[in-house]
Amino acid sequence: VRVSEATADAVDRGQYRNFTEKEIFEQPKAVADTLEGRLGKGRILEEAFGVTAGQIFDNTKAVQIIACGTSFHAGSVARYWIESLAGLPCNVEIASEYRYRKHVVLPGTLVVTISQSGETADTLAALQQTRKLGYGHSLAICNVPESSLVRESELTLLTRAGPEIGVASTKAFVTQLTALLLLTIALARRHGLTAEKEKQLVEELEQLPGRIQKVLELSEEIRALSERFVDKHHALFLGRGVHYPIAMEGALKLKEISYIHAESYAAGELKHGPLALVDANMPVIAVAPNDELLEKLKSNLQEVRARGGELYVFSVKGTGVRASNTTKIRMPEVGEWTSPILYTVPLQLLAYYVALAKGTDVDQPRNLAKSVTVE
Amino acid sequence: VRVSEATADAVDRGQYRNFTEKEIFEQPKAVADTLEGRLGKGRILEEAFGVTAGQIFDNTKAVQIIACGTSFHAGSVARYWIESLAGLPCNVEIASEYRYRKHVVLPGTLVVTISQSGETADTLAALQQTRKLGYGHSLAICNVPESSLVRESELTLLTRAGPEIGVASTKAFVTQLTALLLLTIALARRHGLTAEKEKQLVEELEQLPGRIQKVLELSEEIRALSERFVDKHHALFLGRGVHYPIAMEGALKLKEISYIHAESYAAGELKHGPLALVDANMPVIAVAPNDELLEKLKSNLQEVRARGGELYVFSVKGTGVRASNTTKIRMPEVGEWTSPILYTVPLQLLAYYVALAKGTDVDQPRNLAKSVTVE
Repeated sequence: VRVSEATADAVDRGQYRNFTEKEIFEQPKAVADTLEGRLGKGRILEEAFGVTAGQIFDNTKAVQIIACGTSFHAGSVARYWIESLAGLPCNVEIASEYRYRKHVVLPGTLVVTISQSGETADTLAALQQTRKLGYGHSLAICNVPESSLVRESELTLLTRAGPEIGVASTKAFVTQLTALLLLTIALARRHGLTAEKEKQLVEELEQLPGRIQKVLELSEEIRALSERFVDKHHALFLGRGVHYPIAMEGALKLKEISYIHAESYAAGELKHGPLALVDANMPVIAVAPNDELLEKLKSNLQEVRARGGELYVFSVKGTGVRASNTTKIRMPEVGEWTSPILYTVPLQLLAYYVALAKGTDVDQPRNLAKSVTVE
Repeated sequence: VRVSEATADAVDRGQYRNFTEKEIFEQPKAVADTLEGRLGKGRILEEAFGVTAGQIFDNTKAVQIIACGTSFHAGSVARYWIESLAGLPCNVEIASEYRYRKHVVLPGTLVVTISQSGETADTLAALQQTRKLGYGHSLAICNVPESSLVRESELTLLTRAGPEIGVASTKAFVTQLTALLLLTIALARRHGLTAEKEKQLVEELEQLPGRIQKVLELSEEIRALSERFVDKHHALFLGRGVHYPIAMEGALKLKEISYIHAESYAAGELKHGPLALVDANMPVIAVAPNDELLEKLKSNLQEVRARGGELYVFSVKGTGVRASNTTKIRMPEVGEWTSPILYTVPLQLLAYYVALAKGTDVDQPRNLAKSVTVE
């Protein structure tokens, strides 16, 4: 009889070096699970949000999103989606800011909280405050069914990412975005979204797990270039529009697990200050989808190049971003609405491989805890 | 006959080493000039905004602020003021983001643009867009009377900071805040602000130039401690509530003129990521007014201290923030509403003296232009 030396931990991790890697690579499944039973024939099944969802969505005239950290970034993407697709006014705010100020809430506001654990102290307190003040209905996007946030919300959409062990959130974020896109569609139905357009969106969602899988195939390319970041102490992440929060999330990942001081900016703000920092020691990472903002972004990147900055540009084929000092990472095809979800993945891979090369404790970054259950 | 060797430039600078220093120290006068003729006996004179101001303010049901860079930080402070004092929903957005997305505008929205030069390309384009789309009335907070922004806005409040030569904005920012507080009061009058409370606010505004003068007396103390920043490559600025945008502005100044990678965070977000970066190499600067958020902030600071971080805390007397690894800079008395204006000044001084010690070109930071007139 031989006693296995494999620990339960190692078994759980399977073929992966750590939980963070495992969680990045299981994102296609996490997203597929999150969509499971929530899409019908060319339409989303809004009953998934709860039995009273239809009635609550009928009466929703505005959306207030409240979250912290990575979940705040997911909410920031959703704000663009909700305002552009559903045409509803949408605000998003950091929970620790929202709960301590006197704010104005529009009639018919749906309060949406986002938290992986559902125990984030500030988010929970903000939700309780909105209820006490008699604001509108509440909806939680959460990964833990038995959590306080789920218990205290009228509607819930569970993210079904499975347990997330790595402190830096990866699959929880991507499934939060998926859930928020479902929410956007449910609201947009009542505000001009045609059945045909909904069908297109559903098809795009159905393709999402496969497309994430395609992006994961960039891992070897990104691992190779991560070596160029090992001795760097700074990084700047740029994006525009709905991809600006993705740049924020990319910077946060690099900060959390690689301890590189990475900061994000809306690309149009570059000339209003941060350009003073740009030199050969500060690599600049740009999220550059082929959308109506590409030409503007390219002119921002030209400024970086002119100051000797080293550029890493994530973009699809044929966008003409190749130039001196520029490494282009070519993304596979992305959908119009799911694009921010897909551009998240290579930034996770970058942070992960840099951390691995630096030898940090990827799953348990210093100073951080998985759930911030104190204020 | 002796020919003077003083250049026009040096004459303009007077006793000061450069324009940035001059502009920081002339802020009491800039604010006094901005208030001149705009305060009556215990009330503000809203005609200063334009002859149709009264009628437009009567019909204002929401405020949308649009700006870039430092002006965006001023707008972010105003958002707190407008929601808490006037009880009107207020959004603030970066111009280069606002103009390229589909947004929802509430009925009765007053579009407020902020720009020192009045020629900031993105801000101007955003204003033109809101007009084309038929949104509500427009108001500019601007320092240049003959600028495009003033010409294209229905209402204007000029900041009267005088010419600002230093590329990093100082006195323009502080006068923008002063103007925005006047706007807040004008709007609040129509939404529950009593004559008595207005009188208190006007008294507080009248005291503002003298109080800024008092804060400037901290210059020698701040100059001395700036030496500890000369060899630093990173810094973290923390604030909460209405002082969070002040932390943002403090970080931007240090970035712009001292080339130190300074980043700001709402203090409650510390545990959601940036704490991983904190060690002895990253000084943490906290804006810690004696308000209802102080206790929360102190617990955030304790976390920084526990990780070996070096703390610099700007706070008034008797707030009990003294502790190991902590340098307290004691602020003179501040008013309740003008507090963010007063806490701005020591952060400008800090950035200025660090830049001076590092020998950078303070007035003309590398890569930056005074007015960003291209997109």
